[in-house]
Amino acid sequence: MTIKKVALVGGTHGNELTGVHLIRKWQSQPEFVTRPSFKSDCLIANPEAVAANKRYLDVDLNRQFSVDRLTREIQTHEASRARELNRQLGPKGDAATDLIIDLHTTTANMGCTFVVTREDAFHLQLCAWLQMQMPTAVITSEGALMEDHHFLSSISDHNILVEVGPVPQGLLRADAFDLSELAVGHILDFIELYNQNALPELPASLELFRYFDTVSLPKDESGNLGGMVHQQLQDRDFRELKPGQPILQRFDGSEINWRGPTGIYASFINEAAYYDQQLAFSLLKKVSVDVPASLD
Amino acid sequence: MTIKKVALVGGTHGNELTGVHLIRKWQSQPEFVTRPSFKSDCLIANPEAVAANKRYLDVDLNRQFSVDRLTREIQTHEASRARELNRQLGPKGDAATDLIIDLHTTTANMGCTFVVTREDAFHLQLCAWLQMQMPTAVITSEGALMEDHHFLSSISDHNILVEVGPVPQGLLRADAFDLSELAVGHILDFIELYNQNALPELPASLELFRYFDTVSLPKDESGNLGGMVHQQLQDRDFRELKPGQPILQRFDGSEINWRGPTGIYASFINEAAYYDQQLAFSLLKKVSVDVPASLD
Repeated sequence: MTIKKVALVGGTHGNELTGVHLIRKWQSQPEFVTRPSFKSDCLIANPEAVAANKRYLDVDLNRQFSVDRLTREIQTHEASRARELNRQLGPKGDAATDLIIDLHTTTANMGCTFVVTREDAFHLQLCAWLQMQMPTAVITSEGALMEDHHFLSSISDHNILVEVGPVPQGLLRADAFDLSELAVGHILDFIELYNQNALPELPASLELFRYFDTVSLPKDESGNLGGMVHQQLQDRDFRELKPGQPILQRFDGSEINWRGPTGIYASFINEAAYYDQQLAFSLLKKVSVDVPASLD
Repeated sequence: MTIKKVALVGGTHGNELTGVHLIRKWQSQPEFVTRPSFKSDCLIANPEAVAANKRYLDVDLNRQFSVDRLTREIQTHEASRARELNRQLGPKGDAATDLIIDLHTTTANMGCTFVVTREDAFHLQLCAWLQMQMPTAVITSEGALMEDHHFLSSISDHNILVEVGPVPQGLLRADAFDLSELAVGHILDFIELYNQNALPELPASLELFRYFDTVSLPKDESGNLGGMVHQQLQDRDFRELKPGQPILQRFDGSEINWRGPTGIYASFINEAAYYDQQLAFSLLKKVSVDVPASLD
């Protein structure tokens, strides 16, 4: 197939301003997202949350797009907004949009991280291309986490999330702004080459990280926050957790150490948005996967 | 006079979690803030804003404590809360609390910064002590900004604000948590020595930065955000602005350069909380002031 319609989305989380202002920039200067072989549309996914400078008004918009949730009449601002976006970009399963690129930032020190929800030939080739263009970028996959994915970008079968950090909520950092724009440019270049059947030779294999679990923040006896990410883990996303390494520290000064196996990596370390679920970080396994030479 | 009652305050801004959790820690482990010669009380200034994980519900609480505002019946959550805190800790001008320490964080790279609202003998000696104990800490003064100060801490004639960064809103960083606690420990040690008339010899002079103005973020033709802090200024708080140095960048890529005089320094560079006023950073002048040898 050819990718004919691309949607670029920002403001899925209203206090992640980088995507919001990149979208507004591209709406007024569309040259950057224009390529000969496809059409690019730019949109702000949750303008009400952007206006409120909050991640969301009622519930996380980026958890509303499973087919199951989209087909129920859930009465929250974000569920209603999800149905509207599904009408506009989808419908999921038979979407009018061929590819969705969703722009996010994180307070974690994740540099430029790409998140895919599928590990099929198209996405593996796209990721191999991105790793060629941006050797320090990290590829992560939620492919194994759920069948019916809940990300906005999953409306389209082809989708990728750009996650740049560290960026505090509610502000713009020029470095993250430029890095996000660079990443989107490389995705769009891939699509253009893919449509024209002009992709260069890609690496035969790709290193990616698969999410599989999360670690909670310490709690006190009443269930309230009882500690924080250990200073020695802070900012060290995508490094292997070593047995006995301190990962959390309680407010009384005591430490909690990693007691899991080797070969496990952490990311989204100290993401502000996950405090409501009292999560400290995500766990990932690093794998090497073959990149199919052909898309068929 | 002797300092007999000290109030330690966190959560004046509800999404600055460091102060909130230090206060909760000290409430359950009061040893850290206990000294023989005075009483320490710990309190959360705006629990409703903390619960909402927002800086404030209606208006900035830390701008409500001028005598002028306290004596008017302003109908916002924070104005009402300010009157209550003024009854509890004050009343301003004849306060039951002898010293207020207010704990803040900033998204700017300001390390440990102390903010005083007065440059009298007591505060200059306190700052000289702090600079002895923490040579990398910065002293800033709002003394020249306004007669009738609007900070919560100004309820008491003796007051100091501890500002630690960079810390994103809505999360705890262990480094900033520990640094804030260290800073408060040094302030309390000073009070103890001051009460016992046992202060060591202090430096004869003190370097401090006086706030005098702010610089706005770029705007587009409609008055909306039109750019951001320049990548070359980001994270460079308390460095002198050089003539022609890029300070802001518009979304179209064009740069705005510093056209002011020499001898000016920037701080609160890219503070998320100031986006609602479209402020990019504050301007300060560095001065050397004599530290009085006696408090009379």
